[in-house]
Amino acid sequence: MTRITTDNVGKFSHHYPRTTVIVTASSLGKDNAMTAAWHSSISVNPPLYGVSISPKRFTYQLISESKEFGINFIPFETAFLATQAGGISGQAIDKFEKLNIKKEKPLKTGVPILADAYAAYECKLVDSKPYGDHVWMVGEIVAVHYLEEAFTPESVLDLARVKPLLYLGSELYTSADKGSVRFIKRGI
Amino acid sequence: MTRITTDNVGKFSHHYPRTTVIVTASSLGKDNAMTAAWHSSISVNPPLYGVSISPKRFTYQLISESKEFGINFIPFETAFLATQAGGISGQAIDKFEKLNIKKEKPLKTGVPILADAYAAYECKLVDSKPYGDHVWMVGEIVAVHYLEEAFTPESVLDLARVKPLLYLGSELYTSADKGSVRFIKRGI
Repeated sequence: MTRITTDNVGKFSHHYPRTTVIVTASSLGKDNAMTAAWHSSISVNPPLYGVSISPKRFTYQLISESKEFGINFIPFETAFLATQAGGISGQAIDKFEKLNIKKEKPLKTGVPILADAYAAYECKLVDSKPYGDHVWMVGEIVAVHYLEEAFTPESVLDLARVKPLLYLGSELYTSADKGSVRFIKRGI
Repeated sequence: MTRITTDNVGKFSHHYPRTTVIVTASSLGKDNAMTAAWHSSISVNPPLYGVSISPKRFTYQLISESKEFGINFIPFETAFLATQAGGISGQAIDKFEKLNIKKEKPLKTGVPILADAYAAYECKLVDSKPYGDHVWMVGEIVAVHYLEEAFTPESVLDLARVKPLLYLGSELYTSADKGSVRFIKRGI
């Protein structure tokens, strides 16, 4: 294959696929949901999770006010939630009502949890730091929701039961390949 | 399915699969490579990329000294690189020599680029911030390496040509499913 090396970085997209999550937030009686592919766990103890959000987003405003957010992991079958929640602003409309998104009750926060999610984290905001055109919002995970049968006894997602939603870029989505799963022990 | 809700967060692992990358660094004549699954793009303009690294790691020391790092995206076929680079410390041994990892020349930094990577970012460190038991290291992407044939003209990874390496947790790896790729347009 031909190797290209360039300092013209542009809209770099070589790091996909990534799971696309639905970030939820609630403040002053308004709930919202947005799509995000830029997110990561960043500490085990305390359990911290970060998500990169544009300060122009309504969800950014809600999280800044309430100091809470939810990270919802959704199956491939509900990709329309990601594409529809990502295509509109919740400033004027209630996405939950408009898109008929069903909610579960949160345990430790006031953030909506998606009934369609196979797993979700409730987070309390601990830091909010601007990096370039986005803000890195870090929350401590204070509660976890998950479908028991979706995970193995070792807490690994069971791809025979759930197809996680992965974003590839350019409005293309896929999932993980259950046929390729391999156990590879660490070390030399 | 049975929905579990708990505030016993433990070693949460519901957010996998994620691409496993090889983080490379070089300082004072020493090169090193480590495995990381906790990483994300965080800004388009300027192009910023973050990776969460334990301050106990030798790579953390090298990045702190040199203010540079590389993010290498590797195919499923080279999963052994991830498991072996992740199982040993580079403090005493040269992983590149020991694991016979071939390097390509960097363009704008001194970080090693893996010849096996289907894409890689060269980053200049712009921030380093402790969060819990890890440090969030943020770099500006100053150069991109990629295999031309591995990406479509829209810069999307072509899963028919490359199987990206995804980590599932508990030493289990998989890839993305090329049969599930769907175009789903944004908006309601």
